[in-house]
Amino acid sequence: MSKVEHQNSTVLTDEELRTLDAHWRAANYLAVGQIYLLANPLLTEPLKPAHIKPRLLGHWGTSPGLNLVYTHLNRVIKARGLDALCVWGPGHGGPAVLAGSWLEGSYSETYPDVSRDAEGMDRLFRQFSFPGGVPSHVAPETPGSIHEGGELGYSLAHAYGAAFDNPDLLVACVIGDGEAETGPLAASWHSNKFLDPVHDGAVLPILHLNGYKIANPTVLSRLPESELDELLRGYGHEPIHVTSDDPHEIHRAMADAFDQALDRIARTQRTAREDGTTERTHWPMIVLRTPKGWTGPAEVDGVPVEGTWRAHQVPLSGVRENPEHLRQLETWLRSYRPEELFGADGRPSADVLACVPEGTRRLGATPHANGGLLVRDLPMPSLDRFAVPVDKPGVTLHEPTRVLGDLLEQVMRDTSQRRDFRLVGPDETESNRLGAVLNASAKAWQAQTLQVDEHLDRHGRVMEILSEHLCQGWLEGYLLTGRHGLFSCYEAFVHIVDSMVNQHIKWLKTSRELAWRAPIASLNYLLTSHVWRQDHNGFSHQDPGFIDHVLTKSPEVVRVYLPPDANTLLSVADHVLRSRDYVNVIVAGKQPCFDWLSMDEARAHCARGAGIWDWAGTSNSEREPDVVLGCAGDVPTLEILAAAQLLRNHLPELAVRVVNVVDLARLLPREEHPHGMGEFEYDGLFTTDKPVIFAYHGYPWLIHRLSYRRAGHANLHVRGYKEMGTTTTPFDMVVRNDMDRYRLVMDVIDRVPGLGVRAAAVRQQMADARTRHHAWIREHGTDLPEVTDWTWT
Amino acid sequence: MSKVEHQNSTVLTDEELRTLDAHWRAANYLAVGQIYLLANPLLTEPLKPAHIKPRLLGHWGTSPGLNLVYTHLNRVIKARGLDALCVWGPGHGGPAVLAGSWLEGSYSETYPDVSRDAEGMDRLFRQFSFPGGVPSHVAPETPGSIHEGGELGYSLAHAYGAAFDNPDLLVACVIGDGEAETGPLAASWHSNKFLDPVHDGAVLPILHLNGYKIANPTVLSRLPESELDELLRGYGHEPIHVTSDDPHEIHRAMADAFDQALDRIARTQRTAREDGTTERTHWPMIVLRTPKGWTGPAEVDGVPVEGTWRAHQVPLSGVRENPEHLRQLETWLRSYRPEELFGADGRPSADVLACVPEGTRRLGATPHANGGLLVRDLPMPSLDRFAVPVDKPGVTLHEPTRVLGDLLEQVMRDTSQRRDFRLVGPDETESNRLGAVLNASAKAWQAQTLQVDEHLDRHGRVMEILSEHLCQGWLEGYLLTGRHGLFSCYEAFVHIVDSMVNQHIKWLKTSRELAWRAPIASLNYLLTSHVWRQDHNGFSHQDPGFIDHVLTKSPEVVRVYLPPDANTLLSVADHVLRSRDYVNVIVAGKQPCFDWLSMDEARAHCARGAGIWDWAGTSNSEREPDVVLGCAGDVPTLEILAAAQLLRNHLPELAVRVVNVVDLARLLPREEHPHGMGEFEYDGLFTTDKPVIFAYHGYPWLIHRLSYRRAGHANLHVRGYKEMGTTTTPFDMVVRNDMDRYRLVMDVIDRVPGLGVRAAAVRQQMADARTRHHAWIREHGTDLPEVTDWTWT
Repeated sequence: MSKVEHQNSTVLTDEELRTLDAHWRAANYLAVGQIYLLANPLLTEPLKPAHIKPRLLGHWGTSPGLNLVYTHLNRVIKARGLDALCVWGPGHGGPAVLAGSWLEGSYSETYPDVSRDAEGMDRLFRQFSFPGGVPSHVAPETPGSIHEGGELGYSLAHAYGAAFDNPDLLVACVIGDGEAETGPLAASWHSNKFLDPVHDGAVLPILHLNGYKIANPTVLSRLPESELDELLRGYGHEPIHVTSDDPHEIHRAMADAFDQALDRIARTQRTAREDGTTERTHWPMIVLRTPKGWTGPAEVDGVPVEGTWRAHQVPLSGVRENPEHLRQLETWLRSYRPEELFGADGRPSADVLACVPEGTRRLGATPHANGGLLVRDLPMPSLDRFAVPVDKPGVTLHEPTRVLGDLLEQVMRDTSQRRDFRLVGPDETESNRLGAVLNASAKAWQAQTLQVDEHLDRHGRVMEILSEHLCQGWLEGYLLTGRHGLFSCYEAFVHIVDSMVNQHIKWLKTSRELAWRAPIASLNYLLTSHVWRQDHNGFSHQDPGFIDHVLTKSPEVVRVYLPPDANTLLSVADHVLRSRDYVNVIVAGKQPCFDWLSMDEARAHCARGAGIWDWAGTSNSEREPDVVLGCAGDVPTLEILAAAQLLRNHLPELAVRVVNVVDLARLLPREEHPHGMGEFEYDGLFTTDKPVIFAYHGYPWLIHRLSYRRAGHANLHVRGYKEMGTTTTPFDMVVRNDMDRYRLVMDVIDRVPGLGVRAAAVRQQMADARTRHHAWIREHGTDLPEVTDWTWT
Repeated sequence: MSKVEHQNSTVLTDEELRTLDAHWRAANYLAVGQIYLLANPLLTEPLKPAHIKPRLLGHWGTSPGLNLVYTHLNRVIKARGLDALCVWGPGHGGPAVLAGSWLEGSYSETYPDVSRDAEGMDRLFRQFSFPGGVPSHVAPETPGSIHEGGELGYSLAHAYGAAFDNPDLLVACVIGDGEAETGPLAASWHSNKFLDPVHDGAVLPILHLNGYKIANPTVLSRLPESELDELLRGYGHEPIHVTSDDPHEIHRAMADAFDQALDRIARTQRTAREDGTTERTHWPMIVLRTPKGWTGPAEVDGVPVEGTWRAHQVPLSGVRENPEHLRQLETWLRSYRPEELFGADGRPSADVLACVPEGTRRLGATPHANGGLLVRDLPMPSLDRFAVPVDKPGVTLHEPTRVLGDLLEQVMRDTSQRRDFRLVGPDETESNRLGAVLNASAKAWQAQTLQVDEHLDRHGRVMEILSEHLCQGWLEGYLLTGRHGLFSCYEAFVHIVDSMVNQHIKWLKTSRELAWRAPIASLNYLLTSHVWRQDHNGFSHQDPGFIDHVLTKSPEVVRVYLPPDANTLLSVADHVLRSRDYVNVIVAGKQPCFDWLSMDEARAHCARGAGIWDWAGTSNSEREPDVVLGCAGDVPTLEILAAAQLLRNHLPELAVRVVNVVDLARLLPREEHPHGMGEFEYDGLFTTDKPVIFAYHGYPWLIHRLSYRRAGHANLHVRGYKEMGTTTTPFDMVVRNDMDRYRLVMDVIDRVPGLGVRAAAVRQQMADARTRHHAWIREHGTDLPEVTDWTWT
């Protein structure tokens, strides 16, 4: 039984049918071989236990379906001369995609030791899920992939990211019915409301319903077809069904479905590009319903396997010990008639290769899946045009993200022809005060617009949807295909993508170890609307822990910046937008913030990553400090400087040094992070024996975690956010978390030995100020005038 | 214009119309008052700048719609005698829900100082978004709420969690069209495939399309209605539309929609419960399409506000300074005719209260939203029935999670009548070897079943869907309404819910400070398939960072346990299942693991949380240790014991102490965590001056972060996972991360001073063993026999 819902229109010749089937059989053979065989790859002798891997680790269930897609993508790419990329969503799809890549030759070009012959086939089989070998997922190691099939949910968002601003690219995306149950995938369907048929390429989702996850049926596979169709049409797609359990009939149905889909895509693009049609269309998609573990053993040990969840992993599990399993495996492998598919030298036959396209058209050889080959440096304007003038620190105020917005506007403008820069965010571009970019490019929007709407445009490159998952997934896909971008997000809610950033960091770490993967643009976060300025949002919006999260990950990849003012933010942003292969986290405020450094000073300070602010302290080259005040983050810097001023006024005899840290990893030892400071430098900044009072943007223990190996660590006292959150004023937030200027002065007095009676009086004054604060805020609901009117003098 | 799609069937009398409208107007008045007023709550005098709050922090946009739902839920609850709970999804919905609760009296019963009179109204207004007051979201402080409206995406999953095993409960759930764009919400629609019409209550989703987010239109509001209908029917719902921009006509349409929906729900429940119908039904839902900021200022400063995104927050922003804004605010407030709604004493009029139900039927007074009032202790069986016999440590092997599965089977069985325990997981119950529970309860499944399926049942209490978000959201809703559960998850992928657990921890922290909120059952995680045992899954599945993540959060709430074997896992599981108001994280292996402790020893060890394993070391009461070997986690414990054995054999003169830590927070100082050890105890275990070699399950720096204040910290050397992940064997994983037995012995030799020549020879032997390992694995792809055959002797 096999069907495509619509009229069959594609006529495959018998020859085509035969060669497509040969390719599919060859790929299936190679997938089984990878899971089972350690030797005898061409079955030139009867299968023996010694030919079988000692540990059978792999997943057959999804492979035949993926192979079928690979075969038929080959056909249409070749027939239509397409540039195509495929995102392989299903977990553990490695054997299939490796098979397809090896058959077309791209694998051996990438890994010459795995040659396209018998010896290479032997290596291909052996390395799979083997120590020192390749993972069972589609992964960075897989040619042609921009997507890891390990953690599920992101395939469709990655596919859209790849398609944006790639007008000539077809991005096919196989979505497993397991993955389809995840939240991120469920939200991704609506990405089509953001796809511009003029400037973007096409995404062709292929929902593969093989019916089962690890041990359960899948939700979508058990909906009546009419209900599923309503769902998919509701998502904005026109589904084309291919349903089959007959391997002999599948090819006609697949070919027809692909042709229908691609014709429809071509029509849509043509009408949008040539006729200027602006009506949103239902894009086609394919629903491929085939048995799990198709063409594998129908029954094993008396229970059904093919077409059930039992085919998920290794259908025959006891091959080395159980002669019946061994026999079944041999029958299974020989059912593909390998002697027709491979020569005696192991090379694929002409029939097998008949459908395979040439050169970079091959799925495993497209440069779009190795975006570093395509990426160009961003045209970065001179920062001096955007810098705020600073004659004297702490007098003028600017909203740092608004200043950054002007820079981003220019970048957006300068890429309007290249179209290789996008800004993503969950409905917060204007709230985060980056609205200036909208002067250069509006927000992408293909759905209905009304007269009251502002800044919506079919061709916009600012992307806003209330889904951090989609922002992240789109941007990852965009970067991995060789473009640039920035993700602006409320600090607390970036935790929504903790797991996605983990996977991206892992991807980058692995990619950096692969010489053939060229470096791509970094994934840049601007975290704003941060923990200290959530006046009306309160406790649920207060969480600085993303920094802690990323700093547990590979130090080669992660960078964290806490610019304390507008010019330092410009300098940091310039740096990260030029960088490659990193995950850069910038935390910066959107509220008015004192300007501390001129542009030149900011550049020099950010280049060092941490440094003494001589002008802020009372120690100097002649006068060693009695205490060091450290700070990282805009609000902590403000409080530290206010504390330094109080100390200068009240205890002028005390030698105070102020150290500001922009690049947090500098606190780590050099062995632990490429940005880590050597001992000499660290001790030079913080001393080995003086008390250090450190005000930090986030959880205080992070600073201890970074610096516990330092000589002076025992003297380090850190203040930061300790989950004392609520709806309140900015200054009350720092008071509640004991990071206010008064508390910091008290900390200094408590820790510098031998300060005497006058210091005790000052300490009491500080305690009184805190009491005054509590009374004032209860009555007025605002901050003390002495705080709101404060400036640096 | 106002319409309900179906034939109007509800006939409201003029009296009913009048009183419903009075309630809605009163609620709207109170919402505006909360955002703006500091005094003059009843407008007894003309509005003056002094009556206005100094900081206008609140969100009007969503309030009128929520108020409308509150009014009409009141009507049907009263008319039909329903037990109902409402989950208020939209962000910043605080003013509306506080208004509804204050009107019905539940607010004043919960907070007697905010009385239902003029003085209380004044307090209600003043406290809103005010320092020391209440947040602008629906939050733990809000009577009747189980859901915080801060981070968006989880309302519908919470609603289903509340409905499971609550057959007589109606759970209404208002979903904002912003929230509807998130991944978790998009996935939640399919929850209806898991809702049992016999044993579960009903969920009534109310999708509120007010058209805009912060600064953008919403995707769903801009779909053609036919496309939206297909989507919602594809989700398994029958949508009932209420579309209106005429406040005078809305009530008939709303009443009719609610009646249609509730009639349909009643019919479905009746046929399932009385007639035994098993066909899955399309549950009703309401699509409420009304203008954003409805009944607020139509235009401000010459631009449209009502019905646009500009109504999102504070429509009139300059009220204190701008007389025209002040005038508009007064007109707006008076448009609700407060003099008809409230007496001179501020009490709501009889008209306003006509629709309000009585007692615990009131939405703000339902005990289901204060689950601690309903929760009962779980019937926990004696652990001795499930314990594995241990005569001698390190000889027998068990799969800890399989042993736990037997215990959970019994709990599942003993709650089969009460139905107040559920096990959730993303398709991993059997993979995580907890399959025994399926003997007591199958997996919940309402969609189609086939003959090959196993363990699916319409009435099951094991919940599996490939969405960690849904697992978490369902369980949170279930716990918050007074039931129990366990979430079993692959360790790496629990990061998917990082942000959700943040919010739940914040909820619990705040709840614990509210005397009226009774303690609920803890949220318990079993993290298994952990970092060290991902042989075939590889790098993408290796991440132990969830522990780091939760340990940055409120110490009152979070607990982390690393039981090293089967019996300790039983003891820890027993403890967490009895506990209240915590988030408990258990990390335990599913692979065969040596049994170290008998049940009695395990109980004693877990009660202490950390202790010396005398039998494992060579130091004793007469012999102070030369070195301490610390361990936390099953794999680290194995390697530490193997190292201890090597030291005993090779360097018998060395006095070695082994300390195992089960409860990770014990390492913290007492001031930092309720489980923290005092100095005396810590130093007694780890000494203040001896080298400590600590093998830890996760990122090594966490142990430093927990113990940096300890006297002996400078002597602490931690081994753990450092992102050296790949597809490989179990032992190769520990070698790659330098946590293997040989490396640990080398660490000891490197750190204990004065060991001499023989130690140097032993060190070389250890280095040779690592070389042997590398060669063996390259050739065989398996672990060294000396490792796989190892036992404790």
